[in-house]
Amino acid sequence: MGMLSLLLLFLAFIVAISGGSEVGDLRKIHSLRPQFGAAGTPVPGLSCLSWRLGVEAHNIIEWRTIPQVCEDYLGHYMIGHQYKKDSEAVAKEAFVYAQSLKLAKDGKDIWVFDIDETALSNLPYYADHGFGAEPYNPTLFKGWVNTGKAPPLPESLKLYKKLLSIGLKVVFLTGRPENQRNITTINLKNAGYHTWEKLILKGASASGTTAVVYKSSEREKMERNGYRIIGNIGDQWSDILGTPVGNRTFKLPDPMYYIN
Amino acid sequence: MGMLSLLLLFLAFIVAISGGSEVGDLRKIHSLRPQFGAAGTPVPGLSCLSWRLGVEAHNIIEWRTIPQVCEDYLGHYMIGHQYKKDSEAVAKEAFVYAQSLKLAKDGKDIWVFDIDETALSNLPYYADHGFGAEPYNPTLFKGWVNTGKAPPLPESLKLYKKLLSIGLKVVFLTGRPENQRNITTINLKNAGYHTWEKLILKGASASGTTAVVYKSSEREKMERNGYRIIGNIGDQWSDILGTPVGNRTFKLPDPMYYIN
Repeated sequence: MGMLSLLLLFLAFIVAISGGSEVGDLRKIHSLRPQFGAAGTPVPGLSCLSWRLGVEAHNIIEWRTIPQVCEDYLGHYMIGHQYKKDSEAVAKEAFVYAQSLKLAKDGKDIWVFDIDETALSNLPYYADHGFGAEPYNPTLFKGWVNTGKAPPLPESLKLYKKLLSIGLKVVFLTGRPENQRNITTINLKNAGYHTWEKLILKGASASGTTAVVYKSSEREKMERNGYRIIGNIGDQWSDILGTPVGNRTFKLPDPMYYIN
Repeated sequence: MGMLSLLLLFLAFIVAISGGSEVGDLRKIHSLRPQFGAAGTPVPGLSCLSWRLGVEAHNIIEWRTIPQVCEDYLGHYMIGHQYKKDSEAVAKEAFVYAQSLKLAKDGKDIWVFDIDETALSNLPYYADHGFGAEPYNPTLFKGWVNTGKAPPLPESLKLYKKLLSIGLKVVFLTGRPENQRNITTINLKNAGYHTWEKLILKGASASGTTAVVYKSSEREKMERNGYRIIGNIGDQWSDILGTPVGNRTFKLPDPMYYIN
């Protein structure tokens, strides 16, 4: 890729970015260093696009922070339109699937939603903390959760409403601890999630187990109680791996953190 | 996104593309209609980036052809640098994992490779057939396979050599039918794959079963024979789903076709 195309891309970035963002937190994206051209022309070193794809396809696992060199790239991705588009494609596919089913309408067909980066978005928090470039800080993150101000992930909220409209029940299954039940309830309602069959938080007995083990065990209980898990959506592979996972699973994008 | 940025992106595309391609089949990418800006700025309608991500993350399944509107986008992706980069990231991650293991060195540790779009690349064929936009034509594809001229996927060949060098054995497990054993053997050797523990093709008894069922059953046989499947790499989710799948699995990109 020549200097001319680099320059043009850079200019295009500037113009595209100055077109405005949804979150309005572009001050965090402090410098503009495009890692890649639009057709994937490589810049020497790490491909942040490939890293993100590797994360979403479950090839790259058990990472603790995003590659530092990808902070700008991922900031643009998360705050720009593509994260929204990618989430929308998943939610649409989920509803196409749900709509194709013949439901028993006996109140036992459920759809499992994870909460963080699925029903609710912590993007306002992560935009202030390097989009995953800073190591996870449980104290600070707890402070954010306790404000109860996480907005909905808009595509998930739309999906939630559509699923309810065709007669499915929703279960929220989250790794948030039991002592965040009140604030989580308030936050969910304020974000537009007004009803649910169950809100399952991680109790003391499950503490120390991985998300895969804890969530599988909770889904197993649901099935033992006669529920049929028609669908299951989350941003982490640990939301949708294990047994049982549900008839079909959907992985929302999340290149900011990894939970086992 | 304004007209100026669109124009700049378009110019950047032109300059980037004219920089040359590896396969040299750019004549197939007949028109240049960028679907997306570099930061993911949307063009109305389908997001081909989101479609591809949805395929790689196993959200979008059981599709028969790529969306027609994505032919140009996917052509650029496959022939440009990003497909190569994405494959490289997977192969690198696979070797980082393999290297971290303590191997028994008893000849029973194996790595399973799929063949099409994994060990070998059919990109020269697909570049002439719309990169997945044309419905699968078994007769034409068989004709291509029988030339025995599929090049290696370079990143897989590198991984193969490195895995052999640390003492792993390789098993090729493919959905190609048993009557393609000779040409497949010739093609693998010509492409640089000179040795393997087993080359498993789909026998008559498995015909009619899905790839997930057939490949799981073959992996189960391997384990019953005392092999330990340390790793498993393929371009289809049906290569790496089922039971057993191996200790860790790796999904190479393939937005051109879907096999159940």
